[in-house]
Amino acid sequence: MNYIIGMDVGTTATKGVLYDENGKDIFSARYGYPLIQEEVNQAEEDPQLIFDAVQNTIFKLAQKVKGQIAAISWSSQMHSLIGLGRNNELLTNSITWADNRCAKVVEKAKKSGLARKIYEKTGMPMHPMAPIYKLMWLKNERPELFNHAEKWCGIKEYLIWRLTGKLITDTTMAAGIGMLNLKTLDWDQELLELLEIDQNKLPKIVKPTQVIAAVYPEYVQKLGISTDTKIILGASDGYLSTIGVNAIDSDHFALNVGTSGAVRTIVAQPKIDQNASYFCYPVDKQHYLLGGPINNGGIVFNWARQTLFDANEIPQDFLDVAQTAPAGSRSLIFLPYLGGERAPIWDANARGSFVGLTRMHQKPEMARAVIEGIIFNLYDAAFSLIKNTKKPVAINATGGFLKSDFVRQLCANIFNIPIVTMKEEQSGTLAAMFLARQALGWSKKLDEIVQFAQEDKVYFPNEKEVAVYQKLFPLYCEIRNDLAASYRKISR
Amino acid sequence: MNYIIGMDVGTTATKGVLYDENGKDIFSARYGYPLIQEEVNQAEEDPQLIFDAVQNTIFKLAQKVKGQIAAISWSSQMHSLIGLGRNNELLTNSITWADNRCAKVVEKAKKSGLARKIYEKTGMPMHPMAPIYKLMWLKNERPELFNHAEKWCGIKEYLIWRLTGKLITDTTMAAGIGMLNLKTLDWDQELLELLEIDQNKLPKIVKPTQVIAAVYPEYVQKLGISTDTKIILGASDGYLSTIGVNAIDSDHFALNVGTSGAVRTIVAQPKIDQNASYFCYPVDKQHYLLGGPINNGGIVFNWARQTLFDANEIPQDFLDVAQTAPAGSRSLIFLPYLGGERAPIWDANARGSFVGLTRMHQKPEMARAVIEGIIFNLYDAAFSLIKNTKKPVAINATGGFLKSDFVRQLCANIFNIPIVTMKEEQSGTLAAMFLARQALGWSKKLDEIVQFAQEDKVYFPNEKEVAVYQKLFPLYCEIRNDLAASYRKISR
Ligand SMILES: Nc1ncnc2c1ncn2[C@@H]1O[C@H](COP(=O)(O)OP(=O)(O)OP(=O)(O)O)[C@@H](O)[C@H]1O
Ligand SMILES: Nc1ncnc2c1ncn2[C@@H]1O[C@H](COP(=O)(O)OP(=O)(O)O)[C@@H](O)[C@H]1O
Repeated sequence: MNYIIGMDVGTTATKGVLYDENGKDIFSARYGYPLIQEEVNQAEEDPQLIFDAVQNTIFKLAQKVKGQIAAISWSSQMHSLIGLGRNNELLTNSITWADNRCAKVVEKAKKSGLARKIYEKTGMPMHPMAPIYKLMWLKNERPELFNHAEKWCGIKEYLIWRLTGKLITDTTMAAGIGMLNLKTLDWDQELLELLEIDQNKLPKIVKPTQVIAAVYPEYVQKLGISTDTKIILGASDGYLSTIGVNAIDSDHFALNVGTSGAVRTIVAQPKIDQNASYFCYPVDKQHYLLGGPINNGGIVFNWARQTLFDANEIPQDFLDVAQTAPAGSRSLIFLPYLGGERAPIWDANARGSFVGLTRMHQKPEMARAVIEGIIFNLYDAAFSLIKNTKKPVAINATGGFLKSDFVRQLCANIFNIPIVTMKEEQSGTLAAMFLARQALGWSKKLDEIVQFAQEDKVYFPNEKEVAVYQKLFPLYCEIRNDLAASYRKISR
Repeated sequence: MNYIIGMDVGTTATKGVLYDENGKDIFSARYGYPLIQEEVNQAEEDPQLIFDAVQNTIFKLAQKVKGQIAAISWSSQMHSLIGLGRNNELLTNSITWADNRCAKVVEKAKKSGLARKIYEKTGMPMHPMAPIYKLMWLKNERPELFNHAEKWCGIKEYLIWRLTGKLITDTTMAAGIGMLNLKTLDWDQELLELLEIDQNKLPKIVKPTQVIAAVYPEYVQKLGISTDTKIILGASDGYLSTIGVNAIDSDHFALNVGTSGAVRTIVAQPKIDQNASYFCYPVDKQHYLLGGPINNGGIVFNWARQTLFDANEIPQDFLDVAQTAPAGSRSLIFLPYLGGERAPIWDANARGSFVGLTRMHQKPEMARAVIEGIIFNLYDAAFSLIKNTKKPVAINATGGFLKSDFVRQLCANIFNIPIVTMKEEQSGTLAAMFLARQALGWSKKLDEIVQFAQEDKVYFPNEKEVAVYQKLFPLYCEIRNDLAASYRKISR
């Protein structure tokens, strides 16, 4: 009984990693599921299919060690919303963070000042990703469904309920709803009243290390685990992938850039931003997760590789060509908002641009400008955190976009902060595993996570290039502002 | 004695075309010369080398018809400035329109209001291309040279003086100095006084059809022409390439887009623009040439071909790919100011941009947006003329960028005006030849030029695409304005 499974319920797939008693990952499994997009802006998932993926994952991992699983602990996508009926039967699919159908509700709430109030009370950015806006939208558009629902929860809560019969949530997941009061760390009364939702319709909030007695016997057998296997409540992927790279206080930022990206840090006090440019989600009364989710990461790199070069070009070719251009790409500025943007500008209509072309700018400059622009945007998001907290000692970085020495060094130069890479990239499941160790008493304090989340290489800023980018970044910001007004018109 | 030579003294080369008595071109010749760029922003030419090219050209053409040349008539680059000493010896090179060393003088004159005054008096845009600013610059920076000069003229005046001993200019060339009063059609007294230049230091102004007695015997022999060969004064290339496509009144615009471009029309009254966005040069008291010179024509097409594709890609490939994208390039906007811009924005610091990128935009959209952007800029320049005059019946178009059916049709759709192509692309030398015919009495009225400047194909606007571009053009203008403030900062 020395093994722990860290589960990561993502938007496109569920991944599970099997860890041994020393916290070493020994096996992993992954099962995907489709996004349901039957109408414009819809982005739902079938909770049953996710539950199937979860069962497959656990079964596959448990088999490897003959069911000797001490605990299963959870990292989960945030902001999903599921409506349940009298017997907890599904009334809706899981409406994901990517579902934008409540965009108009958000627009209205922005104008009325309600969105600002929600941000100040709960740290939730003014964005359709938040279930509180999805609830407002359902209340208006589907009143019957809305009134009929006995419970509202997210996908993690639903999955654990299926396995154990307990419908509870943890603070980090609750924060993702947009109704968790930053001061009381409980559901906000005023917002509950506004929505006319009884407190009982929302899951009870407990801490992430909560141990849930046992799995239903039928699943113990079906999944090939043990009757002693414990379910550990776990937390949001945002929180876990932050502590999972050992960014446990404001000395470190966690930067993950895969297809999309995020920059996050943990501070001791709730701290909201004048421009609402980042989220502030409570973990407990001493820890608050600040950060920004960023749409335009490797997905833009990928677009540029295929568009400026062609589909057969491998990433390394693109990087090689980009490196032949000088730092700053001869002042060619690229705004990477190809998929609209969340942090730091929170504008779904935003678009990408190359600004400042002359005949000196050839393919290498355009390629390098794309990479620099993606990183300027990451820095822009990080900068709003720095302004409200402090400059971190280092940035702990993971993700496919940050795979090369070139891009890592560029990050260090643009951020003017050392970039540290991690030995273990699966930070979410790793931290879920760590929560299980705490729950089981195998590890004690949070800072022991450093034993598992080990740092690898450090990339120090290069003074000369820092100077180039410090000059260029204000220009990037200016152009970002100059173009803001035109996006709405372009998108019509 | 039935042949006429039309000479075109351009910035990179002198071209000569030999015409028979029916105005048919039967032979042509071309000799180039280098631009002198020994310091930043300098762009001079050696008048002697140009005179050599002129001699070579005439010699080559005259040989073809055993010297039976009735007349040699001249089309010339505008805005060149040459200082001459007591015996008309050269004190300077020919300082061309492309020389930007007086940019600061123009900046100052803009701030003081002097530039505006010059525009209002003379129709000369507030730009370093104008000799009046070059004279101010020389007065400040090279006072000895400035005071020493006995005459100031342009390259056409110098060449004709070398051949005939007469130093005279015509109204269309005089207009290019920036000191010709729009009302009096003579040198402006106030500006002469401001510059402390005596009227006698500038060539006398006569009309373009002026016949100059005879060529020096030494050159008659050297060039292989006849003692009866007449020199016809000729005019500016701007004016001649307008009447040379049969755009002799405001019913027609002339559009030429080669490496760079220009849009021009002839109106009956002087008409200046609120924003000084085009020039207004007198021809005579009934004719005024309005128009805008545009830096970013085929040179930008060429850049895009080499940068988005590669240097081996032929123009047709680029056009083929561009045509696979829908009209409007899915709202991707390209600002073509890669070489700064003269008309219509008159901003040397302007730069190129792609604005509005999403992941839907691939190579075809980027390619098409480049072509559309180049044409939007042409239309933008034409639009300032239309606002102050009227919408023309047709646009008579020439130049390498307008060679394909696709680009011509696109022009018709963006301008929402029929595009007419010409049988004869060498409109400058053709019109110079026509002036000679008038001077010789072979042709009478200007409208007879239509016999030689014959229209070829017509491209009518396509309603559906017109609608797309009428929606997109305001967006193009808005983005053009939004980015204006950033160019100065980028260029530092
Ligand atoms: N098929 C084509 N479609 C569009 N543009 C083209 C094509 N072929 C050539 N060009 C562009 O046309 C330009 C050359 O045109 P042209 O020969 O009329 O110009 P030029 O005489 O050099 O220029 P200018 O008239 O400005 O002095 C080049 O910049 C080239 O990129
Ligand atoms: N060498 C590279 N340099 C920069 N980006 C890369 C490189 N290789 C892959 N990518 C980008 O990384 C992204 C995938 O990263 P990954 O961390 O696996 O993302 P995710 O888990 O979010 O899908 C893709 O968008 C891809 O374009």
